[in-house]
Amino acid sequence: MSATDLQDRDVETPVQGEGEQFDEENRLKPEFVRQVRESLRDDNEDSTYDLVEPLHPADIADLFELFEREDRTMLAAAITDLMGSEVIAELNDYVREDMLEALPPEAVADIVEQLETDDAVQLIEDLDEPDQRAILSQVEPGDRAAIESALTYPEESAGRLMQRELVAVPESMTVGDLIDYLRKSDDLITEFWEVFIVDHRYHPVGSCQLSWTLRTPRDIALTDVMKRDQTLIPVGMDQEEVALRFQKYALISAAVVDESGRLVGQLTVDDIVHIIQEEADEDVMLLSGAGEGDINEPLRDAYSARVRWLIANLGTAVVASAIIAFFGAAIEQLVALAILMPIVASIGGNAGTQTMAVTVRAIAMNQLTRSNTKRILLRELKVALMNGATVAVLIGIATALLFTPQLGAVIAAAMIVNIIVSGMAGVLVPVAFERLDQDPAVASSVFVTMITDSMGFFAFLGLAVLAGLATV
Amino acid sequence: MSATDLQDRDVETPVQGEGEQFDEENRLKPEFVRQVRESLRDDNEDSTYDLVEPLHPADIADLFELFEREDRTMLAAAITDLMGSEVIAELNDYVREDMLEALPPEAVADIVEQLETDDAVQLIEDLDEPDQRAILSQVEPGDRAAIESALTYPEESAGRLMQRELVAVPESMTVGDLIDYLRKSDDLITEFWEVFIVDHRYHPVGSCQLSWTLRTPRDIALTDVMKRDQTLIPVGMDQEEVALRFQKYALISAAVVDESGRLVGQLTVDDIVHIIQEEADEDVMLLSGAGEGDINEPLRDAYSARVRWLIANLGTAVVASAIIAFFGAAIEQLVALAILMPIVASIGGNAGTQTMAVTVRAIAMNQLTRSNTKRILLRELKVALMNGATVAVLIGIATALLFTPQLGAVIAAAMIVNIIVSGMAGVLVPVAFERLDQDPAVASSVFVTMITDSMGFFAFLGLAVLAGLATV
Repeated sequence: MSATDLQDRDVETPVQGEGEQFDEENRLKPEFVRQVRESLRDDNEDSTYDLVEPLHPADIADLFELFEREDRTMLAAAITDLMGSEVIAELNDYVREDMLEALPPEAVADIVEQLETDDAVQLIEDLDEPDQRAILSQVEPGDRAAIESALTYPEESAGRLMQRELVAVPESMTVGDLIDYLRKSDDLITEFWEVFIVDHRYHPVGSCQLSWTLRTPRDIALTDVMKRDQTLIPVGMDQEEVALRFQKYALISAAVVDESGRLVGQLTVDDIVHIIQEEADEDVMLLSGAGEGDINEPLRDAYSARVRWLIANLGTAVVASAIIAFFGAAIEQLVALAILMPIVASIGGNAGTQTMAVTVRAIAMNQLTRSNTKRILLRELKVALMNGATVAVLIGIATALLFTPQLGAVIAAAMIVNIIVSGMAGVLVPVAFERLDQDPAVASSVFVTMITDSMGFFAFLGLAVLAGLATV
Repeated sequence: MSATDLQDRDVETPVQGEGEQFDEENRLKPEFVRQVRESLRDDNEDSTYDLVEPLHPADIADLFELFEREDRTMLAAAITDLMGSEVIAELNDYVREDMLEALPPEAVADIVEQLETDDAVQLIEDLDEPDQRAILSQVEPGDRAAIESALTYPEESAGRLMQRELVAVPESMTVGDLIDYLRKSDDLITEFWEVFIVDHRYHPVGSCQLSWTLRTPRDIALTDVMKRDQTLIPVGMDQEEVALRFQKYALISAAVVDESGRLVGQLTVDDIVHIIQEEADEDVMLLSGAGEGDINEPLRDAYSARVRWLIANLGTAVVASAIIAFFGAAIEQLVALAILMPIVASIGGNAGTQTMAVTVRAIAMNQLTRSNTKRILLRELKVALMNGATVAVLIGIATALLFTPQLGAVIAAAMIVNIIVSGMAGVLVPVAFERLDQDPAVASSVFVTMITDSMGFFAFLGLAVLAGLATV
């Protein structure tokens, strides 16, 4: 949400996401993007402007993200007066940072002043110290103070996300008083969904949805309409936690309070939907070791995030190889072992990944707690037994036919062992990290992979030796 | 949102998610859950009621999910008059279905009548035909018609999600008219955020946020306050698409229109946040082959979803083994090949998973389109080169020291080849599925794994033979 919405309201524009610029999935058509790029490269600024002008700010932001770096700056120059704060706020973090670095501090400061605190903070928090200072020095004192105080809160906390702009009124007001107050005061924010009722210490005592006030006679006291049981967000709360509360209690907006319980800001659901998305994606990316996993992330960052992961897995792979090395003699006697051993390891790996993904998400959604861990572990054990039995039969028979019945029996047994071990590891590793107050998504899969690979080779080769098919 | 909110407003209850029942992360404390379970098993219904009564409906729902099956029915019996529609609506789908099947149709029908259409539909859509009919026959005609018409729309479409309850007024109204109308009519829904302005054909011509009407003098025409550029949701639109629109345009509510453009319902963001979560989770689960990935999913479903995946991967593992088998003779001559080959395959697999996760999410978020596919592919190629070079040096040196320099060179070369192939496959496979209108998350990883495994073994063993370290 941004301060420009009020103006937008009067502008006649087509239904959002419709029209010939869009494909059926509301994405800008490649033809349209190419058209804009071409008119840019012919520096035909007017035609560029006419093409982009009908777009919603969010679609203009998409256009920038679809362009290559050099085209972005050209586009910005061609449509300067369409570059409202909404476009800036909608831009992908990396693309925005990249573009801001190209602008002089004064220009950025102008943008910052247009934005509401939460968007302004989001805009400059990623810049480095000196740039931040250079920009803030240009921002008018009031806004600067608000932004600077927001920056004092930890990253990804409610204090960073909240809007300071809100509507708070004293307990004494009636519905009529409120409506008159809203009509009179023109410096209020343009979009709000709830009014917060505060006591003399500015502590929230209740909240009142606008729909209730609109449906209630003027002479009724707000304290009779307001909802008293409210979700108060401590200013230091982590954004993931905030997002869970909004989902769980179906909130549209919520009051943010400081340590002393004073109302210091509000959070609205339209800012939270992005967080819900981010936090869910973060787990996908962490589980697959893809770092930020943003296609706009600078090459250097993508490389360092991913290579760290590959090196960690190199370690686990080496452990698995050491186990194979221990059985080197057996493999020399019976090469079939070398041919079949990766099957046991890789199916175990898949089974482990399945269980781990389920567990990590359940933990993130607060569905898996100490109260039901034992039940879930038992459940996964059952699934593992059923899966293991099924796969063991298939691979056992195939091996018996292609190689020898004994080898078929060995691989079947090894498969069952490994799938059960994998299933248990898939639950226990993430749960253990969570108990240690570590994010289960970060390191679980390195450990689970190591367990499933090593166990796969060890169980198969070990059982083969026990069965006397080969000797160490 | 549910019809019970209006009553809730007057009930004095503690701040949501606070109090001794909760841990610091707003989860019900194990001690509390145990306490309730024990008072249930001593059938001390009063103490059970007193324990549960202060909880928010969403927390009561959590309590049910944390319990085992048998305890759930006991709890439901002990707190019947706390089992409001909000609790039912907040319950996990599987848990709810399970509990509903235990109830007689009349009882379910009573619950259904309490709910708004969207919640009612969500509640019965998962039940099988006969149960649905049995229940609907008990529901009063008006609600039944609404639910039945919702069920005519495809699953996961806007028509299933929308609320029929909304506030729509003619263009002719002024702000004052609207407020009077809202005060007079008491059969309106209790919670709404925007008023829809419709023409004589009941086509939406604009929407008006309550905050704007509250801030505008009574004599101003609504058409002067309303926002004309609106996001209209076609009733058949898929929920994933709907969620993307809500995020992109930061919507609080949106009008749903039928083919002829008539206003048939509304969607509100508090219903959409669940969808955003679901759709993001769905991709994690699909990528790891974990089916629904819900810890409450019945054992049978979890098994069939996951075993299908394991069998698919068994197929890819067999392909990889066939390649190893082809080099059987080489392995017999040089067992070091068997020891090292899993390293090349597994690191390639990791690199492929990283790229694939990034690509799948970018496609899902409409960030990766035909307009920038080439750029992203080039970007991933660069990352793969950097990753490949780094890992190759490490494993190459280690192998040169532990085995022979030639083998070190071979494994280094194989590693670079496989990481590049993996990176390309990680982009091209999901993109290909998307172009074929298939969900990239469903089958991508089976193909990517097959490519990375087979390529890993083939590149390493093949190069070893080329280098003359062994013969086929």
